[in-house]
Amino acid sequence: MKQAIIFLTPIFVFCFIASSQNNDSLILRKIYDHYLSKSKCYSNLEHLTTKIGARLSGSAQAEQAVQWARKAMYAAGADTVILQPCMVPHWVRGQKEKCFITSSKLKSTFTLKCAALGSSVGTGLKGIKAQVIEVHSFDDLDALGEKNIKGKIVFYNVFFDQTKIRPGSAYGETVKYRGKGASYAAKYGAIGCVVRSMTSVADDEPHTGNMYYDTTLSKIKIPALALSYKAADLLHETILKDNGIQLYLETHCETLPDAPSFNVVGQINGTERPNEFVIAGGHLDSWDLAQGAHDDGTGIVQCVEILSAFKQVGIKPKHSIRAVAFMNEENGLAGGTAYAKFAKEKNEKHLAALEADAGGYTPRGFLIDTTKGLYNQAIKWKSLFHPYYIDRFDVDGGGADLSVIQKSGGVPCIGFEPDTQRYFDIHHTAGDTFDKVNKRELELSGAAIASLIYLIDKYYQP
Amino acid sequence: MKQAIIFLTPIFVFCFIASSQNNDSLILRKIYDHYLSKSKCYSNLEHLTTKIGARLSGSAQAEQAVQWARKAMYAAGADTVILQPCMVPHWVRGQKEKCFITSSKLKSTFTLKCAALGSSVGTGLKGIKAQVIEVHSFDDLDALGEKNIKGKIVFYNVFFDQTKIRPGSAYGETVKYRGKGASYAAKYGAIGCVVRSMTSVADDEPHTGNMYYDTTLSKIKIPALALSYKAADLLHETILKDNGIQLYLETHCETLPDAPSFNVVGQINGTERPNEFVIAGGHLDSWDLAQGAHDDGTGIVQCVEILSAFKQVGIKPKHSIRAVAFMNEENGLAGGTAYAKFAKEKNEKHLAALEADAGGYTPRGFLIDTTKGLYNQAIKWKSLFHPYYIDRFDVDGGGADLSVIQKSGGVPCIGFEPDTQRYFDIHHTAGDTFDKVNKRELELSGAAIASLIYLIDKYYQP
Repeated sequence: MKQAIIFLTPIFVFCFIASSQNNDSLILRKIYDHYLSKSKCYSNLEHLTTKIGARLSGSAQAEQAVQWARKAMYAAGADTVILQPCMVPHWVRGQKEKCFITSSKLKSTFTLKCAALGSSVGTGLKGIKAQVIEVHSFDDLDALGEKNIKGKIVFYNVFFDQTKIRPGSAYGETVKYRGKGASYAAKYGAIGCVVRSMTSVADDEPHTGNMYYDTTLSKIKIPALALSYKAADLLHETILKDNGIQLYLETHCETLPDAPSFNVVGQINGTERPNEFVIAGGHLDSWDLAQGAHDDGTGIVQCVEILSAFKQVGIKPKHSIRAVAFMNEENGLAGGTAYAKFAKEKNEKHLAALEADAGGYTPRGFLIDTTKGLYNQAIKWKSLFHPYYIDRFDVDGGGADLSVIQKSGGVPCIGFEPDTQRYFDIHHTAGDTFDKVNKRELELSGAAIASLIYLIDKYYQP
Repeated sequence: MKQAIIFLTPIFVFCFIASSQNNDSLILRKIYDHYLSKSKCYSNLEHLTTKIGARLSGSAQAEQAVQWARKAMYAAGADTVILQPCMVPHWVRGQKEKCFITSSKLKSTFTLKCAALGSSVGTGLKGIKAQVIEVHSFDDLDALGEKNIKGKIVFYNVFFDQTKIRPGSAYGETVKYRGKGASYAAKYGAIGCVVRSMTSVADDEPHTGNMYYDTTLSKIKIPALALSYKAADLLHETILKDNGIQLYLETHCETLPDAPSFNVVGQINGTERPNEFVIAGGHLDSWDLAQGAHDDGTGIVQCVEILSAFKQVGIKPKHSIRAVAFMNEENGLAGGTAYAKFAKEKNEKHLAALEADAGGYTPRGFLIDTTKGLYNQAIKWKSLFHPYYIDRFDVDGGGADLSVIQKSGGVPCIGFEPDTQRYFDIHHTAGDTFDKVNKRELELSGAAIASLIYLIDKYYQP
């Protein structure tokens, strides 16, 4: 008899697992059907990007976006929508920047397409004019030293490594020049700095993005700008012909007092453990140059749609499910910090958190935290995603907005990973517009996110 | 001693396999580096699409493309370039089509964006005007019968199934109405037919493509056109308001006598078995409405680049490697048929053949034939492709150009599979232009193809 039980148990377990998988595959199919035929992802994105548009923290549009997100979450079927207050930096670009090269040797003036970097100080109304020194690394600056740099404008001419398969890796290598390049240059007495845009595409669009003043390097704040790829080429070529050229920079940006803003959190209440949470979010703010479509309107609408998909498909989650529209990812992380603070104050247990902030492209997979066994659990679901062309379950996890809750709260995090080959073509440029988003790609990625949230809620036990 | 041998053999085999894989991963890395930093894929594509442009079989541009391909293959390092003659159909669109609705009830005329289907007869200079009957399947026609159809224009209003994950599956379901819709309608006495464009995108671009007259259904050839998605919507909505509307069609297309043309075959001679071949190709011809960028300029330049990659990386293939630019894939397969005929005449043994004809998008994987163990061999290489985000090794294989050699010659075939979510947005429309191709996506897919060809040449034994 005992033998018979031993023999039967695996069959029973197998049948149970097979039946669960079968049921789950039906639920995933329903989630995909919802996203591909009934979802509001695309129309919501159209509204957010073309009716509201650029929504940098502190701007009137960012506040419109907060109000819109609240309504959109209720419309999607949220049981409740919470506005979490946070104070955000309020940087404004002001009048359009100017940048041109003057060369007495070449008897020419060249205008360069440029954009002030976020958080940078302005040049003042009169601008600054100085000789340019081109470098390719911080080591170059160390080697040149103050005698060669003082009073000049530093030009970080660093290319994306085109041979990297993930463009994000090339971005990771070069973004440090945007981030702390100004302070590193100021340390040696430079009066301004310009960086080659962080991109792999040879066009004439400057890519803005945040910089910060690293006071451990220098107490002096100098203006910093991004040049378009082609402008950086032109500057480099002109220096080759005349290394005594002067660069004129004029920016009108400034940092105003911090402004009040909000994260917007839409929730479906859990049926078994309502004070335990599975969350998925993107960031509501965007750079001021464009509509913030891929960065990160797409992440927002994909996550808002989870609420609708759960309601329409009839999924009653055990834990509370949240779509989170974080504020201020681009230049401060005030929203991510506030979310973690509120979670701690209210003693909210977070099972897992997903961030969608890599563009609204075709889905590839998930970058999953190994914390508390989440990765090991998630790879068991890989076969469920195979029919949907989701084949990457790689170890990593999270995104900027989740970094605080990940570190301080020990929450296992996931970064959703679409195909990113085109992302850095338009990242932080005027080209990040609604028309660059493909409806099917947007919806397929949304369905992948909602499907993973469904499985985590149902099966994951940390 | 015997035990020791048994024990040691697996270690030896393991070390050998590990070392081979390690060496292969280095070669793949070199192939990718070549494509991503030195290849001519993008500049070749720019020339083919913007300097030569649309190149339907029989056109002057198709012949320019033949001469260009010959030069490009020699420039890429071909040991020899063969022009394989073939006679191709020569269909011409003539003057721009006209299509409009007249409704006496609504007292209105609506103009519809349309395009004659390839191989269709024209309407004559006076056009045709008749009542429209809307159907959603061939079954609808059978049910309506001659009494309801005779003398009318049939409107196939069949949508893509948006819930299909591969848009190609939705295409496969609907393309039959484009293909034999005219003959099926003529069987019941219709005098013309229009089809909703085969696409998932709700825009105003008509999608042309080939049709054929199925004489088993009807001996009468009636004109056939594609309506844009929006035009089909408008026609449907107008019929709902007035089911007695008249449709006017005017097309000036005609089929001229067959014209001489060529496949272009660039070859690197094999070092061990020069009369055995591994080939990769795309089709050189394209529809007349656009530049034929994704369909199939990208396949051409990716395969031509294999020759260059092998030479630059220093790969000396055992078998002869061919990049094949097939002629006349779009409306006749004369090139694919000629290739198979020459292979048979010259007793050329083909180990395997790959076709790249699904757009120049980001790579996903390969559709591989199970014939002669190719699939079972190929899946062993899956881990080599993992770092390059190539994760799909699915059973299927080949493409239209290879269909003849696959059937008649028993050659194991492979279809290269990029991401196709955007392919049918622009497929066979005026929108299939160079600017729709992303340089990195093009190059990454090219490198994937070249890598598989390298591995097949090195390891595959049928």
